[in-house]
Amino acid sequence: MKTYLDCIPCFFKQALDAARLAGADEIVQRKVLISLANELENFSLDSCPPQMGKFIYNRVRKITQKEDPYKKIKEKSNKLALGFYPELKEKVKIAEDSLLFSLELAIAGNIIDYGVKHSLDVDKELDNILAEENEAIRHESKAIFNYSEFAKELKKSQDILYLGDNAGEVVFDRILLEEIKRMYPNKNILYAVKEKPIINDALAEDAYMCGIDKSAKIISSGCDSPGTILSICSKDFLERFKSADMVISKGQGNFEALYKKSKRKVFFLFMAKCPVVAADIGCNIRDIILLYGF
Amino acid sequence: MKTYLDCIPCFFKQALDAARLAGADEIVQRKVLISLANELENFSLDSCPPQMGKFIYNRVRKITQKEDPYKKIKEKSNKLALGFYPELKEKVKIAEDSLLFSLELAIAGNIIDYGVKHSLDVDKELDNILAEENEAIRHESKAIFNYSEFAKELKKSQDILYLGDNAGEVVFDRILLEEIKRMYPNKNILYAVKEKPIINDALAEDAYMCGIDKSAKIISSGCDSPGTILSICSKDFLERFKSADMVISKGQGNFEALYKKSKRKVFFLFMAKCPVVAADIGCNIRDIILLYGF
Repeated sequence: MKTYLDCIPCFFKQALDAARLAGADEIVQRKVLISLANELENFSLDSCPPQMGKFIYNRVRKITQKEDPYKKIKEKSNKLALGFYPELKEKVKIAEDSLLFSLELAIAGNIIDYGVKHSLDVDKELDNILAEENEAIRHESKAIFNYSEFAKELKKSQDILYLGDNAGEVVFDRILLEEIKRMYPNKNILYAVKEKPIINDALAEDAYMCGIDKSAKIISSGCDSPGTILSICSKDFLERFKSADMVISKGQGNFEALYKKSKRKVFFLFMAKCPVVAADIGCNIRDIILLYGF
Repeated sequence: MKTYLDCIPCFFKQALDAARLAGADEIVQRKVLISLANELENFSLDSCPPQMGKFIYNRVRKITQKEDPYKKIKEKSNKLALGFYPELKEKVKIAEDSLLFSLELAIAGNIIDYGVKHSLDVDKELDNILAEENEAIRHESKAIFNYSEFAKELKKSQDILYLGDNAGEVVFDRILLEEIKRMYPNKNILYAVKEKPIINDALAEDAYMCGIDKSAKIISSGCDSPGTILSICSKDFLERFKSADMVISKGQGNFEALYKKSKRKVFFLFMAKCPVVAADIGCNIRDIILLYGF
């Protein structure tokens, strides 16, 4: 996805939030904003938004001199999400369509990120997302939800590559991957995480902490931007991305990085968190999306 | 009021909105954003936010080469607001406390601004603001509403200076000024407008178009920022500001420019439109405020 001018005010908001979450004082926060302002003229709108995300968080890291300023937040998210795991597994068991329900959960997991950052009541938010009587009725009301294609591709694919998003929500990905493994025990699943700390994106340590290794092999994308930007991924990862029978991309960051930037079809699973993305694909903010496209 | 770091993302949003409202294309919009970015390092947080507003709109004016890019929007606002005038005058007549009701209306007039910019249903919004049974009950629920001080000061003041805000809402100011004149026909009221076009702020032509001259003398503050910044007002205006028995400052822009920056007590009448202002004075966003202070 390209960067829209509307993303620019939001970059400044993200930079301020990032500096604050890293514990920076007001002087340092201002420095981060000014360094972003000074970069603006050089930034091409043809770049995807996570490219600027990478710049912002590298500045925060450099100016605050903290290698992984969000480490504690990530751990907190993992613990919070793991607390929901047993109850959610029970819900999957009694769901009419457990694959569809697991997909919804995986997307709903995005709110863990919101929850930790904005003190949302995660429990209540999950209830809201799963409010309709059952997943089939919810499915009907969704703007973009290519579920039948997903089920069909899943059935015939042997090698599946899943691109993780944030710490914490990894637990929700795990539930989906466990459901896939329950249905198709012989499929090979790779779960890709970021190579280096970038905001609260999941690293290998988060994936292990959240128990992903029970159903998938954890690999690194080689990339350290908040979204899988192919041009900075490792050669090894790019080969796997190309050769996988099915790619599932999780979260808005990965969508922003890959949508209209990749030569292969991908299942994009995410919650549309901002008006720019919502307008780009034609949905409402906070819609949960399963989009099969390039 | 000082500028908070949280105002910075909002400056970029304002600049983008301003450029778009002025009919600028994407290339020009980007230019406006970059010129703001380049200014950021020089901008002191001790300045009030309208100081940056002045910079932004001067850039929009210069880059778009339009002297008054919001002229049509202002005319549209004036006409829209004049359409409400007869009905609102009837409502004032039957109000239990017509002064209090007129004050509420004057603040509610702020949404004309919102309405024109964001296609709000102004009629419905007015109904929402005036939803409670009567103005006395509404008064009780307000966070900051120094009404008894207002009524007391009004009674004993002979020379009243009223600082106007945006075009359109001038009609709502007029209803308040007419109510004051009905109660106290001998008071002298000055209605101050901006000297030169600045966003959709009311100029003398808007005040005349909205009929302010029927109850007040229209003067210029000498200032061309979206808020009355005393350091750039005319000498003549400053004398009147100092000597007036009572000053009523309308709108958030004037509040941002004058609050904690003036040596005299002022009645600030406005709707708190942003989280920064709301946090600064301790109210909720969209609260209607009558604050008596320096």
